[in-house]
Amino acid sequence: MEKLSKIGRYNFLAEPFHCDLNNNLFIGHLGNHLLNAADFHSSDRGYGMAYLNTIHRTWVLSRLVIELNQIPKAYEKFIVETWIDSAMRYFTSRNFKITNNDGRIFGYGKSIWAMIDTETRQPSDILSVREGLINEYVDKDYPCPIVKPSRVKIDDNAELVRTIETHYNDVDINGHINSIKYIEHVLNLWDVDWYREHQIKRFEIAYTSESHQGDSLSFYRTSSTDEENQYNLKITRFKSGQEELETCRCKILFS
Amino acid sequence: MEKLSKIGRYNFLAEPFHCDLNNNLFIGHLGNHLLNAADFHSSDRGYGMAYLNTIHRTWVLSRLVIELNQIPKAYEKFIVETWIDSAMRYFTSRNFKITNNDGRIFGYGKSIWAMIDTETRQPSDILSVREGLINEYVDKDYPCPIVKPSRVKIDDNAELVRTIETHYNDVDINGHINSIKYIEHVLNLWDVDWYREHQIKRFEIAYTSESHQGDSLSFYRTSSTDEENQYNLKITRFKSGQEELETCRCKILFS
Repeated sequence: MEKLSKIGRYNFLAEPFHCDLNNNLFIGHLGNHLLNAADFHSSDRGYGMAYLNTIHRTWVLSRLVIELNQIPKAYEKFIVETWIDSAMRYFTSRNFKITNNDGRIFGYGKSIWAMIDTETRQPSDILSVREGLINEYVDKDYPCPIVKPSRVKIDDNAELVRTIETHYNDVDINGHINSIKYIEHVLNLWDVDWYREHQIKRFEIAYTSESHQGDSLSFYRTSSTDEENQYNLKITRFKSGQEELETCRCKILFS
Repeated sequence: MEKLSKIGRYNFLAEPFHCDLNNNLFIGHLGNHLLNAADFHSSDRGYGMAYLNTIHRTWVLSRLVIELNQIPKAYEKFIVETWIDSAMRYFTSRNFKITNNDGRIFGYGKSIWAMIDTETRQPSDILSVREGLINEYVDKDYPCPIVKPSRVKIDDNAELVRTIETHYNDVDINGHINSIKYIEHVLNLWDVDWYREHQIKRFEIAYTSESHQGDSLSFYRTSSTDEENQYNLKITRFKSGQEELETCRCKILFS
């Protein structure tokens, strides 16, 4: 396989039917483009999902944060640059930079990925894949000047704001609720009038356990005391006859 | 503006996170690609949504039918060809052909579009735009060998199978529930176990009135007596204090 640059660059379009009532690309669709860029980048370099499936392994997104100065508007073309800035045995850290063709910066993203064995669902050694090939692509220098994802604090007083059922369109290839669908369901907790006045400045999500179609998801929310218009959330999953378990946490800052 | 061919060809990828648990592209995402192809095709020829907005007009999708022999699989590239096969004062008919790079046919689509004045919400004369330019691009000969959308019959015994709330992510640029979201909500009426055994052969939707965020949507379903695994549906919208009104009808054939 030809040696490629450490940083991948991928072109996207803010499709008109993927934009909200302010003409802004939905954050869920932007998140999906980041995941695509991650997958194209790792596939081009020999350790993408399609190859990993052949050795019964897959990437699992553990954390994602997106911080935006501006959101791409309907019909706007944008570029996602992505690169690995750290690779360890059980986790890699992948950064994103989102710009337009003139170099104007929309924002940045950071993510943490684990690798699992698809048969045992146990963590798998990332550095054992193709003899640690991923190490050849680590770039520690290219700047990604946003704060890393941090632990999202939720106290016991968080208010239950909604419980939803999960359905066919929520479920991904692996039979789990799609990572992006949590983002959409969380952002649906605010109504369109809120979005007429507020824009998402930073969105952070940490996945703790997988949920499946048929699980109910409950959303618990607190206003953060640290900053105005910041909310911390916990999402739990529940299936009849089973215990309620946490599936992910989010922190959202609106401006 | 340079005279283009009557038929537009657009390349798409069945993105892995847009595929269901059978590795099949979700029909909602396929529908979105058809709408994109329609928009690219009409924009390239001078009467796309972006131009129409400048003269206070827009396209409104009235009917869409998709018939599939096969559904694109995750990572599969596909081509959508689209062309106008009829243009009248208040309606145009647009066809779609979905193939892979080798010419293998996934399926076809047909759609009916109206044009409205965005201020009065009243129908607008399509042939008055750029002096009937659209007539120069009508192709009546290129084959689209599927049955046209037909009237979906619903009797009064249709069973209410689900009522849902609509949220921020359901709402498009115009403040209406996105056409594609109805398709997703309808297909969510069947669970993942159903989709392990059944594939969508034909999906037909006719839009009758617009709904908005905050409307509840109710789904009424009957099994068709015409054909096994065919279902007819009516979707109504309801807002507190208002009458329940029909918003669209669907007909789905599974194989």
